[in-house]
Amino acid sequence: MGGDFAPTEIVAGAIQSATEDGTHVLLVGRSDEVGKALAEAGAAGNDLRGGVGGLPPLIEVVDAPEVIAMDDSDPARAIRSKRGSSIGVACRLVKEGRADAVFSAGSTGAALAGAVLETGRIRGVARPAIALLLPFEPSPTVLIDGGANADVRPEHLAGFALLGSVFARIRLGIEQPKVGLLNVGEEPGKGSELTKEAFKLLDAASGSGLNFVGNVEGRDIPTDRVDVVVTDGFTGNVVLKTLEGFGKYLFEQLLQIFSKTEEAKQAAKSLLPDLLALGSTLSPETTGGAHLLGTKGVCIIGHGSSNAQAVRNAVRIASETVDAGLVEEIAQAVAKERH
Amino acid sequence: MGGDFAPTEIVAGAIQSATEDGTHVLLVGRSDEVGKALAEAGAAGNDLRGGVGGLPPLIEVVDAPEVIAMDDSDPARAIRSKRGSSIGVACRLVKEGRADAVFSAGSTGAALAGAVLETGRIRGVARPAIALLLPFEPSPTVLIDGGANADVRPEHLAGFALLGSVFARIRLGIEQPKVGLLNVGEEPGKGSELTKEAFKLLDAASGSGLNFVGNVEGRDIPTDRVDVVVTDGFTGNVVLKTLEGFGKYLFEQLLQIFSKTEEAKQAAKSLLPDLLALGSTLSPETTGGAHLLGTKGVCIIGHGSSNAQAVRNAVRIASETVDAGLVEEIAQAVAKERH
Repeated sequence: MGGDFAPTEIVAGAIQSATEDGTHVLLVGRSDEVGKALAEAGAAGNDLRGGVGGLPPLIEVVDAPEVIAMDDSDPARAIRSKRGSSIGVACRLVKEGRADAVFSAGSTGAALAGAVLETGRIRGVARPAIALLLPFEPSPTVLIDGGANADVRPEHLAGFALLGSVFARIRLGIEQPKVGLLNVGEEPGKGSELTKEAFKLLDAASGSGLNFVGNVEGRDIPTDRVDVVVTDGFTGNVVLKTLEGFGKYLFEQLLQIFSKTEEAKQAAKSLLPDLLALGSTLSPETTGGAHLLGTKGVCIIGHGSSNAQAVRNAVRIASETVDAGLVEEIAQAVAKERH
Repeated sequence: MGGDFAPTEIVAGAIQSATEDGTHVLLVGRSDEVGKALAEAGAAGNDLRGGVGGLPPLIEVVDAPEVIAMDDSDPARAIRSKRGSSIGVACRLVKEGRADAVFSAGSTGAALAGAVLETGRIRGVARPAIALLLPFEPSPTVLIDGGANADVRPEHLAGFALLGSVFARIRLGIEQPKVGLLNVGEEPGKGSELTKEAFKLLDAASGSGLNFVGNVEGRDIPTDRVDVVVTDGFTGNVVLKTLEGFGKYLFEQLLQIFSKTEEAKQAAKSLLPDLLALGSTLSPETTGGAHLLGTKGVCIIGHGSSNAQAVRNAVRIASETVDAGLVEEIAQAVAKERH
């Protein structure tokens, strides 16, 4: 029920996941609205025959009569009071073992509250955090925390480093991902009170399962100096939205240049496919959403503007991450760290 | 003496400022090294005749035998202990009324300490802050604090808003600049403890000389939603370096696309001048440095890589800012706010 184009695009993406990728999908929401979206998708030419109860194969509908609004100011309270909210029910399915992963294009706060309160935290994880895989070429970068925790203590940043490191190992296939602390200077001793203390903790943890490369700066994010950039959820969210805004700005400036003269228009034509490809690698539709790490299930929070393709990508990535044993790997790493 | 290309490029920029822009420049540093750089500039064809003591007109050398290194971990102590440091002496010249403005391409921390300890704070300014004019088209944006204060309290952010607002009025010619608080959501009540409290202070101050438009996000920075983006020095510095790194990354990706095929190379040729112009508007050489606001003199901190052109630009902007009465305007605004 969450997202700008719910339930139509969510349902359309789920159908693609089920019919084309063979993923078993539980659609959680108001069953009448979800059913209507499914019927419309069927009328639009999707082959929905062959499943149970008139549904396409591998698709089930789980009724959840309530919805948590995007602008709900206290999503944790909403999760507790609206026991039948779509995100709450979905997270409970994960806790009950009826689902391995949850995807939502709705309120980030509600997904976070649902995953923490309903699915539950992994033992030893004080603060689940949002990890984003930024698709820089040739060296993608994991940013953690992307916005789950606006106020953190140094030990939380050390925890994010561990979560991000396991995530990078699984998603990027790097055995010892280079973990850096986002800071305002490279030298130890630089930064805020928070980052100075976190540096000491990370430096002490370095070696035992963590490849801490020290402080990194904003300019290092797209480079191969670092695989995992650790920061608080406030700074991380600002960085993500700054990248989004600046990318959009530069593309608009390029389009202006490309349409300035007839000659420029002709020249731009032959470059356009590659430029669009560059733009699309950085768009929220392709990157497949943000991973909430540290709860007992895979949890992906999609962009509010998620369309069917974005939903399908997110479900595919969720599926791969489950198969790779992300939750178990995190639990093991945290347990090892505590001993 | 500060910067990657000191004193050669600093001296070359100063000569341009003096001979081409008619600005009276005091070169502060080791007089033997500065003298040598001046002699070299003369040998390289610059017309240095006509001034006093063999110097070009409008140029004076002020001896300062000590230098504060870029990596000095405690610049405030260095300013106090090295009474003859070039940045310390330069800031003292401003205090003594022998200069109106100081420019440095050296350590930001040393310039900050010099300006605060030697030039002195404007009455009522608790924390001087670094303002940067980001040259987005068609709507440039002032970011404050760019890195002077890593740890701040809500009332400091309110102070930055006032400094940034006066700066935008003078530099951008906007009578009531739109001031936004950088945050992780637009709604009041969003954010960290710091930004929640700062929002209340800014909201209360709105109207009386401050045009507070509420919370803004990273994606709003390049847009005309906001003229002045207020944030702590940690977040501000991360934002600046993220913009720098991402801009560099995207230009590298563009260059790859443009050199992929013969056709692309031909097409790129006709677009290149405009692309380079776009790149140069965003480069540190053109933007003319960061302004430290809140001390009793104009203080511009240049990029470490400042070349002669960057130095000349910074000196020109310093000159304009002095003529516009920046320090007096800030003093008046702060005094008004306190009554």
